[in-house]
Amino acid sequence: MTKPESLVPFFNPRGVVVIGASHDPTKLGYLLATNLHRSGFKGAIHYVNLKGGTLLGKPVYTSVLDVPDPVDLAAILIPAQFVAPALRDCGQRGIQAAIIGAGGFREIGPVGLELEQDMLKVAAAEGIRLLGPNCIGLLDTHLPLDTTFLPPPGPTPGDVAFLSHSGAICAAAIDWARGQGYGISRLISLGNQADVSETDLIGPTAADEHTRVIALYLEGIRSGREFIKQARGVIKSKPIIALKVGRFESGRKAAASHTGALAGEESAYNAAFRRAGVLRAETSEEMFDQARALAWCPLPKGNRVGVLTNAGGPGVTAADALEARGLKMAVFSPETLKTLAESLPPAASLHNPVDMLASAGPEQFAACLKAMLADPGTDSVMVIYPTPPMHSAGAVAKALIPIIHQAEKPVVVSVMGERLIQEAVEHLRAARIPEYRFPERAAAALAALVERVELLKHAAEKPLMRDDVKTELVREIIKTGQKDNHLTAIETARILTAYGIQSANLKLATTEDEAASLAEEIGLPVVLKVASADISHKTDVGGVLLNLADVKSVRGGYQNILAQAQAALPDAKLTGVYVQEMAPPGQEVIIGAVQDPQFGPIMMFGSGGTEVEGLKDLAFGLAPLTELEIATMLKRTWAGRKLGGYRNILPADIPEVEEVLIRLAQLAWDFPELAEIEINPLRVFPDGQGAAAIDVRMRLIPV
Amino acid sequence: MTKPESLVPFFNPRGVVVIGASHDPTKLGYLLATNLHRSGFKGAIHYVNLKGGTLLGKPVYTSVLDVPDPVDLAAILIPAQFVAPALRDCGQRGIQAAIIGAGGFREIGPVGLELEQDMLKVAAAEGIRLLGPNCIGLLDTHLPLDTTFLPPPGPTPGDVAFLSHSGAICAAAIDWARGQGYGISRLISLGNQADVSETDLIGPTAADEHTRVIALYLEGIRSGREFIKQARGVIKSKPIIALKVGRFESGRKAAASHTGALAGEESAYNAAFRRAGVLRAETSEEMFDQARALAWCPLPKGNRVGVLTNAGGPGVTAADALEARGLKMAVFSPETLKTLAESLPPAASLHNPVDMLASAGPEQFAACLKAMLADPGTDSVMVIYPTPPMHSAGAVAKALIPIIHQAEKPVVVSVMGERLIQEAVEHLRAARIPEYRFPERAAAALAALVERVELLKHAAEKPLMRDDVKTELVREIIKTGQKDNHLTAIETARILTAYGIQSANLKLATTEDEAASLAEEIGLPVVLKVASADISHKTDVGGVLLNLADVKSVRGGYQNILAQAQAALPDAKLTGVYVQEMAPPGQEVIIGAVQDPQFGPIMMFGSGGTEVEGLKDLAFGLAPLTELEIATMLKRTWAGRKLGGYRNILPADIPEVEEVLIRLAQLAWDFPELAEIEINPLRVFPDGQGAAAIDVRMRLIPV
Repeated sequence: MTKPESLVPFFNPRGVVVIGASHDPTKLGYLLATNLHRSGFKGAIHYVNLKGGTLLGKPVYTSVLDVPDPVDLAAILIPAQFVAPALRDCGQRGIQAAIIGAGGFREIGPVGLELEQDMLKVAAAEGIRLLGPNCIGLLDTHLPLDTTFLPPPGPTPGDVAFLSHSGAICAAAIDWARGQGYGISRLISLGNQADVSETDLIGPTAADEHTRVIALYLEGIRSGREFIKQARGVIKSKPIIALKVGRFESGRKAAASHTGALAGEESAYNAAFRRAGVLRAETSEEMFDQARALAWCPLPKGNRVGVLTNAGGPGVTAADALEARGLKMAVFSPETLKTLAESLPPAASLHNPVDMLASAGPEQFAACLKAMLADPGTDSVMVIYPTPPMHSAGAVAKALIPIIHQAEKPVVVSVMGERLIQEAVEHLRAARIPEYRFPERAAAALAALVERVELLKHAAEKPLMRDDVKTELVREIIKTGQKDNHLTAIETARILTAYGIQSANLKLATTEDEAASLAEEIGLPVVLKVASADISHKTDVGGVLLNLADVKSVRGGYQNILAQAQAALPDAKLTGVYVQEMAPPGQEVIIGAVQDPQFGPIMMFGSGGTEVEGLKDLAFGLAPLTELEIATMLKRTWAGRKLGGYRNILPADIPEVEEVLIRLAQLAWDFPELAEIEINPLRVFPDGQGAAAIDVRMRLIPV
Repeated sequence: MTKPESLVPFFNPRGVVVIGASHDPTKLGYLLATNLHRSGFKGAIHYVNLKGGTLLGKPVYTSVLDVPDPVDLAAILIPAQFVAPALRDCGQRGIQAAIIGAGGFREIGPVGLELEQDMLKVAAAEGIRLLGPNCIGLLDTHLPLDTTFLPPPGPTPGDVAFLSHSGAICAAAIDWARGQGYGISRLISLGNQADVSETDLIGPTAADEHTRVIALYLEGIRSGREFIKQARGVIKSKPIIALKVGRFESGRKAAASHTGALAGEESAYNAAFRRAGVLRAETSEEMFDQARALAWCPLPKGNRVGVLTNAGGPGVTAADALEARGLKMAVFSPETLKTLAESLPPAASLHNPVDMLASAGPEQFAACLKAMLADPGTDSVMVIYPTPPMHSAGAVAKALIPIIHQAEKPVVVSVMGERLIQEAVEHLRAARIPEYRFPERAAAALAALVERVELLKHAAEKPLMRDDVKTELVREIIKTGQKDNHLTAIETARILTAYGIQSANLKLATTEDEAASLAEEIGLPVVLKVASADISHKTDVGGVLLNLADVKSVRGGYQNILAQAQAALPDAKLTGVYVQEMAPPGQEVIIGAVQDPQFGPIMMFGSGGTEVEGLKDLAFGLAPLTELEIATMLKRTWAGRKLGGYRNILPADIPEVEEVLIRLAQLAWDFPELAEIEINPLRVFPDGQGAAAIDVRMRLIPV
């Protein structure tokens, strides 16, 4: 639960006590005490250890009860079994925030879990917020404050806040930051998250004036919707980029629908991050590469990139990398081309990528960059160069920096090489200009800026909900279904109707005669489908007959379907046969919803039919859906793009598909007891003629 | 043209003359002279400059004619217009190999192109092989020899040969190598490739005993099949990894078939690299990351990886990265688990990834790695660790090295961080063990080793060709078609038959009466299709009617089709209407071939129908096809996987599909005059019942 005010002592303590401070330099309790001592923390520092004595020029108290004012944060690094009693003392002493560095809790098994629960009980009783256990601590380079027990040196002050579910990744991140030349504002190791979670810390971290971007290493999120809410609340001013690992850990679930089988944890995280406006990094390196660009660059207005270089190869490589990331090569105006021509030798290539040739020096780099940035057709620029043969890479960097600082468009630099270009690198880092050794990484950084613009649009959107839905009616139908944990095709059709989604007319026949008379009532030709709570995929058991044109075929079909289904699944209880109108032709799509344990209902859209899992032409989104999310889902799938018409396929009723998506998402949102909902296919008629659910599956969560 | 013996002077000259050697330290001619002087080259070194004098303690001759023996290689760095005369002198002097560093040729436009052609004429007349022009030169760190004009320092000696179409990338590569701690054996800048190309150099480079891997930066390949031949000739002993850029440069071609529209340059390169056994790197960084692993590691037997780490986060990150690259986590035997348990504390995680916990020291790393390598279920190992809190990363590296050296399985190491882990990095580099700062890059390196094993299988395969094809008959039919640059459906069916591919029976009707009698002859129901050389996509113009069950429908259909087609395309010349048997139901696939300008015929396989471009369920391969290539194409597409059966879709006749692929590839190989060949759909009947081409398109190259 987020109670931001209770987290204040973690980030602005008046006094910190280290419980378990050690004299022994080989002990983590010694490292913690010295890190805190050396951090430059301006508040009071206290040490507690049963052995007493003095440490770093201060008395070591034998109990936290003896620690003088001010003290409002405890950093506890003692064996697990002693943590709960220590917390009780902290409570008595009036301390309401504690960092539990110690391991030996939940992560080691049942014994540790019990210790963790005992500790939590004490913390709750004493009103203490906990970071950890099993964490490395937190540090703030600007306050400054360091409660970690990592070997020095710590990170340099900077703009990137890093929150991590892994302590080891924290240690690596500090060193990566040092190697790649950016600073860290705050680093928080979350450990087991017995109390405080990544979600709780988003708001307080974004509120930090020194933090310009939040980078997250996540192994999972417990309260998905709260995470989205917190992220959406801050991302307008503070970008968030996340590396979510553990992608391949989730095993296959048993599922009754295509949606249930396909809308896995990964789809849910992707949909959730998009709704939250959180960038998802593919690799650790990419996360920090992109975090720098997000922290330092203005946002581009679009995706048209100018490339400035002093050789052909780097230009082609950059163009490839940019296009692979979905960016476009800018097309320059005649004025820009004229300015470039004035600065460059005749053999130079003026068109994007601009190849100034190997002779180009600092002035030419600067003049060309200026001209490219002034072009209204350029949204951002990548400068890419190996050390120019006749100039120093550093001199070029120095000439570029003032132009980049004046620009309102983002510029990233790829200085190719490693050791020869260190001077250039140092200049660029000091000027807070993102620089990369390899052009592909620079391209990825620019792509992250473009994606952030897109994500800000997503996060600004409001989910769509319709007023004309009959919630009470659906509740009643579900209640009936829950009695035998099954919704019949008649019931699912009624539920859809209650939410304004049209189904093909369908009735249940329990005798051959009834089938015949229903067929005439509905109007021939008709479709027959087996009715059984035990049969999920009806076509697989020969349980569907299409286009029966006369009563005789209907009668034969009735018997035939029952016989086939019984033969295929002898144990299935057959209720009869549904008689359904034969809907007119149209395009067919699948629309489904599934309840994700972390994020609630996830929507799926794509190519329907029986080959859904094979074709995998699918897109996912978070329910309830927004207009932009729906547009994105349609654009990302062939099924969606095809709705606009293709060759001899007529344009279909897109607004109706959008409406079904909105309403099905709303249904899934309103009724978490519907574990899976799937329309497959939704037949979409030509433009203006609507759509009809042809086959519908809903699975109830057993009560 | 490859004449390897004529290239000997480039790689083992007895004497080198620098034509254009300069006294002026700001000139490239000075850098070249000093690089050669400092390189330690053991042969004779001579300088030529019109001004004469002495340079670096040697006389400067005013003409190459004056240069004494021995001299067999010229490095020429003078303005473009003087190169041809200098070459004439070289020829007179008996020099038969020259490196032309100078620019100002083809790359600057028509004037330069003329100079290049003049130069080539002289070279041909004098029997001189040329490297360049517009190149940086070549160097060999072991010979040693350095004819580049790059600012020092040059690369350290090593195992990686680098051949590049871009000189700037050469310069960057030397510096990247220095930064990432591997050496270079040979570096060759190819420039404009007026004579010697990347293909010519593959053999001589592979023959170099110091080269263990060949890395290529390619902007294109001119003689595709020769490149494949050369590469296949060496890759068993010397792996080749290529970065091919310029992916997005090729514009859309006008094409008459789906295959023509979709089988672009990129598909051709991918298919060609696979046949050649060449690994394709996605990025510059990846190329050099993977080159190190290829140079230093034994090959794995399979794709099962053990991960050894000292913390949870790195283990999950590594597992994710490995699985994202298609590798599998190894499952350890009970013996391995027992050995691991003996080395580790009880809270450690013994199952893959093995988390030894933060307390793990060098001995534990070594013991666990040894146990994992001994497990028959482990094909390779990734060791991943941030600096252990209580030990040095360097000490761990030192303990790992002897185990890794003894192993017959590949081991890569990801030491996470940057500056804190430099000691570890230095140890590993000196021991030639691939190490990476980020786990994802280590995973990519292991994946490259696994891919190399796969590629060796591909390169070892023989293309399949059938003897029972009627080449002469096809030649005659094509000759007829060439008269009006068109092959009719009757002709394409005859061509397929001649190559043993069955088509659905089809005849041409030019009157309604003829259509009716043909329908009865073929057997009702039938299909009608418009016949016209001007109509490529018949369904788009209402030119196809299916399942006509009686003569009356056939008659009506005949008129209807002609009317529709005429209305849709008033200018199209209609020849009549084809009457075709209505083939029994089956699965439908597309099989096509297109002539690629670099690589000759490329095959396409996948989901057919009218939505080929939308679904993009396609795989490509090089004709003629091998058994493994066909298996790969089927496995990579849903259309191919589905042939084995899926839900209520019956298993189809896979051997027949394979046979059609073999035979169509052979047809495309035998007849380059067939620019595009496409069967769409090939209807594949249930297992054992064959397949039939339902619709066929062939486009002739205009003669």
